[in-house]
Amino acid sequence: MREPVPLPKAYRLLNHGPTVLVSSQHDGRSNVMAAAWAMPLDFDPPKLAVVIDKSTFTRRLLEASGHFALSVPCRAVADITFTVGSVSGRDEDKLQARHIATFAGTTTAAPLIEGCVGWLECRVIAQPGVQQAHDLFLGEVLAAWADSRVFRDGRWHFDGAPDELRTLHHVAGGAFYSPSDLLLARLRPATP
Amino acid sequence: MREPVPLPKAYRLLNHGPTVLVSSQHDGRSNVMAAAWAMPLDFDPPKLAVVIDKSTFTRRLLEASGHFALSVPCRAVADITFTVGSVSGRDEDKLQARHIATFAGTTTAAPLIEGCVGWLECRVIAQPGVQQAHDLFLGEVLAAWADSRVFRDGRWHFDGAPDELRTLHHVAGGAFYSPSDLLLARLRPATP
Repeated sequence: MREPVPLPKAYRLLNHGPTVLVSSQHDGRSNVMAAAWAMPLDFDPPKLAVVIDKSTFTRRLLEASGHFALSVPCRAVADITFTVGSVSGRDEDKLQARHIATFAGTTTAAPLIEGCVGWLECRVIAQPGVQQAHDLFLGEVLAAWADSRVFRDGRWHFDGAPDELRTLHHVAGGAFYSPSDLLLARLRPATP
Repeated sequence: MREPVPLPKAYRLLNHGPTVLVSSQHDGRSNVMAAAWAMPLDFDPPKLAVVIDKSTFTRRLLEASGHFALSVPCRAVADITFTVGSVSGRDEDKLQARHIATFAGTTTAAPLIEGCVGWLECRVIAQPGVQQAHDLFLGEVLAAWADSRVFRDGRWHFDGAPDELRTLHHVAGGAFYSPSDLLLARLRPATP
């Protein structure tokens, strides 16, 4: 069910604005946090941007290793998403203490989170100015994966798939909306 | 129905990942484009990030004026959203040719788009490095507004509101999902 996403379509995993899980690994320690502030930055090679606060342990590992991964969570893992967004890796080994299953990526050592529906393995594109001033990290996507039940042919297909595979879009305080009701827009004609 | 959003809650307008309309004005000319790649960057003072391609007329006006606005469209204006994302202001005056109604902001000259459900007036935070290399623009939010039928008490409330006021989340090729089915996540207990 987990299948590679062709790199030129990797941006589509984030195009509709889901909350993501950011993970990183360095020197035998790994961590994961939630981030609602992430977006695509370029198509091919695919790049993305994500905001990672200075106080986070994930950031320390990311800066030390130069790599990170995003996992795109769905309703089935909403509790994991909320939990890793609420506790700090400085205080506990979240992955172990909260029983969060992971699997290995192919291009980075950052752990990918089981039960999610999309994954992006990234290397940090160094931009010390915005990293320091705005906690903004840019990454190049080296590999991408998705659950083919909801992402195939280069795009999301939530209709007809199990409800709990829909992505999470954080509103406030652990409340998430999910995508529904696909709408096909039309061109508005110009005045003749 | 259009009410001011307190600045420390302005990030919530973008937190769930909607597609936005970017508008700008300079020297009597104005334009608007669609952008799926936008996100919050900070809480207070509120800041945001948005990707704006070099080829766009909106960017030319934004760079000349140092200001821009985001409007957060909903299903009622899906056709406008798709249209301003498909035609270029270099080729036509979109606002006039496509009969797009606007209203004036309070802190910038960039036009705000009628029929949307949220609005953010911004000044550009100069970051020439990422602007040039990655088409990435940072902005400080100077004023924010929302339709109180769907955004009040500092957050979105789509449940119970008219369907066409739900925001748009671009999947591919003019197809948009909208938020639905609010889910309240719980903390996953740590191992005792």
